[in-house]
Amino acid sequence: MSARTALHTDRYELTMLDAALRDGTADRRCVFEVFARRLSGGRRFGVVAGTGRLLSLLRDFRFGDEELRFLRDERVVGASTLDYLADYRFTGTISGYREGELYFPGSPILEIEGTFAEAVLLETLALSVLNHDSAVATAAARMSIAAGDRPLAEMGSRRAGEQSALAAARAAYIAGFGATSNLAAGLRWGIPTMGTAAHSWTLLHDTEEEAFRSQVAALGPGTTLLVDTYDIPTGVETAVRVAGPDLGGVRIDSGDLPTVAAQVRELLDDLGATKTRITVTSDLDEFAIAALAASPVDAYGVGTSVVTGSGTPTAGMVYKLVARQDSDGGWVSVAKRSADKASAGGRKAAFRTLDDGAATSELIVVSDGFEKIADAASHPSARGLHVPLVVGGEIDEAAEGPAGVATARAHHLRVREELPVRGLALSRSEPAIPTVFAEAG
Amino acid sequence: MSARTALHTDRYELTMLDAALRDGTADRRCVFEVFARRLSGGRRFGVVAGTGRLLSLLRDFRFGDEELRFLRDERVVGASTLDYLADYRFTGTISGYREGELYFPGSPILEIEGTFAEAVLLETLALSVLNHDSAVATAAARMSIAAGDRPLAEMGSRRAGEQSALAAARAAYIAGFGATSNLAAGLRWGIPTMGTAAHSWTLLHDTEEEAFRSQVAALGPGTTLLVDTYDIPTGVETAVRVAGPDLGGVRIDSGDLPTVAAQVRELLDDLGATKTRITVTSDLDEFAIAALAASPVDAYGVGTSVVTGSGTPTAGMVYKLVARQDSDGGWVSVAKRSADKASAGGRKAAFRTLDDGAATSELIVVSDGFEKIADAASHPSARGLHVPLVVGGEIDEAAEGPAGVATARAHHLRVREELPVRGLALSRSEPAIPTVFAEAG
Repeated sequence: MSARTALHTDRYELTMLDAALRDGTADRRCVFEVFARRLSGGRRFGVVAGTGRLLSLLRDFRFGDEELRFLRDERVVGASTLDYLADYRFTGTISGYREGELYFPGSPILEIEGTFAEAVLLETLALSVLNHDSAVATAAARMSIAAGDRPLAEMGSRRAGEQSALAAARAAYIAGFGATSNLAAGLRWGIPTMGTAAHSWTLLHDTEEEAFRSQVAALGPGTTLLVDTYDIPTGVETAVRVAGPDLGGVRIDSGDLPTVAAQVRELLDDLGATKTRITVTSDLDEFAIAALAASPVDAYGVGTSVVTGSGTPTAGMVYKLVARQDSDGGWVSVAKRSADKASAGGRKAAFRTLDDGAATSELIVVSDGFEKIADAASHPSARGLHVPLVVGGEIDEAAEGPAGVATARAHHLRVREELPVRGLALSRSEPAIPTVFAEAG
Repeated sequence: MSARTALHTDRYELTMLDAALRDGTADRRCVFEVFARRLSGGRRFGVVAGTGRLLSLLRDFRFGDEELRFLRDERVVGASTLDYLADYRFTGTISGYREGELYFPGSPILEIEGTFAEAVLLETLALSVLNHDSAVATAAARMSIAAGDRPLAEMGSRRAGEQSALAAARAAYIAGFGATSNLAAGLRWGIPTMGTAAHSWTLLHDTEEEAFRSQVAALGPGTTLLVDTYDIPTGVETAVRVAGPDLGGVRIDSGDLPTVAAQVRELLDDLGATKTRITVTSDLDEFAIAALAASPVDAYGVGTSVVTGSGTPTAGMVYKLVARQDSDGGWVSVAKRSADKASAGGRKAAFRTLDDGAATSELIVVSDGFEKIADAASHPSARGLHVPLVVGGEIDEAAEGPAGVATARAHHLRVREELPVRGLALSRSEPAIPTVFAEAG
């Protein structure tokens, strides 16, 4: 299949383009905005993720022969639109929140400026990437907070679509996980990879002891042995007998983890394996991790819950037209007024106001028409949140690839420190800080 | 990035392979099984989806220079394992449930037979595809049942990772949806595509009327106009004034849908647009669809809930070793005994027993060791559920591509008719039929 991404698009974007090319509005300059009306799942903050991936996919947002032939054969658009698409390349400007940044209801996470024609086509791709990756990153950040200093590994590839698994490994790493089991994520973005062994490894061998001996022979006594295939105390004893007291770790993937972890720790200590680490991996989410805070657990492996956003698999962001030129070339703010779904029109600037390093509000300054908005200089205790991502069609390469991931992770861990204490709790509640809309002076 | 899929793999699969090549167990023939311990979310049945995609991805499950270099540089495996991987190609046999088939707790959905070395590597890829696609298909089937004869379109691409969106469109279509908004799914699998217009279309124009005029000029009066950008009654009046009473449809994307649909139907009828169809699209799931059964709604567009599995974003299938050769070449059944996660060892055959066309049980016959199991002939009222998918490494081409999707959809719609009435209800409950394990005679 083509690596081009231009058909990761809902059909209506193409038919609107087709009609706009006919009626002359296709060239009107527009500002579209990506934002979330609320934080799904009663979360206290959201984490922006996917930006770097989106920029890479934008590079490949071209219509080749295969795509054009399909659109023609299916009569999605007419001949002049096909001509337009054949030369399509986004030439506008995109600014937005840094990847890894926190967001709140109404935060203008991404701002896309271009002609209607070029900007309307990016709705589905932008939302697919940001909604998925941000949902995972938000869940991952909560788990990372719950885990404190104990390392977290993402092991959920098998519970997500094979490509979303890769994106999830990336998003979890940005939000504070330390490693992933997914090798493709290691190759693509330099994320550290890790792994232990599966139950099939023990079952393949005639005895558990043979399986452990073989694993230690191959990977050394510092490896982590999975001890719950049959009986956990027997598994632990066998593991220490085979690897010696320098056994690196044991993994437990079943049972009531607080109880089992305490028993295993006591047994390991009795056997002299006082430095052997305990990794637990059974259906953990942020609540289970928090509940293990007082248990002798050394590391967590998280699967299903992180890759599925722990109950909130999509971030609920939308892509809305907020300003456009009219037929005279002047700018007008626009917004729909649908019941329960009204939007705030106008181009926006965004700041996080701070008091002694702690965030106090998400300050969103709405422009009057299309004036340049006074920047952070007029808000001495605020941090400006928008950075340029695409300027005149030129994509910021620094946001892509392994370097972009590393930058996003560092940024996330830094700005997370700004959260007020009430932002760290796991229960459902209001956002950690209020969103304040202000008109530009 | 490489189209090869071999690194969509958890690291432990490679390290187990490495250790197995060292200790001589890599060549032991093994049978792995994909099954679900329970139906997540209290569902009454599951729908198998993703099989055709998995077979296509299996074709590309090769280790090229890029993958091998990564595994070497990261010291994931040793030199002799790299040599093995360079020539890797699955040469074993896979049989399983037809795509579109129903499944129940313990159903042996996929059976992979090969050496430990070749079969252990497929765990993550197989589960990623089947868990995601089956979760979507299961949710979609419930929506399709709730919608009855009214058409359903999948419009959720923006709420799923960009590649999972494509897979979700495919899975929803297999489970009874009639169309998707996702153009890539149309190109790749021949799924019918559809679309209306976005709120940005109305906002782009100086008035709602201009937007409607332009859309009707481009797409004809048979198009569907989105009438809720400002005020719904005004939008409906404008729509009929512009398009005439032959207006194809109106779309409503907000408000209390039963109330609004009734008002809009009355208004349309008063305006003489008695054949204009009403499509609703706001946050629908199977429960909302069922609640609209008595409302004058003609079609449903479903987004978030279908692509995220309507509360159950992953199917919870696992990949377990169930039988293997021992050092003498004899077959032994194996199973782990972990608390709450015990498995049934042994190769299995699966039948759906029927009484007058209605399913009565999922009959799973466990072989004694590795004997060929008596087939459906000995169960006159049962339907055998396993079909060959890969034989000696040769992939069944008929299961891939558009033809495979069409076959899966037809199969699903046919076997869904076998569900007993209690299987059609939406509330959380026990599986529609019991799973019965029997020993082979």
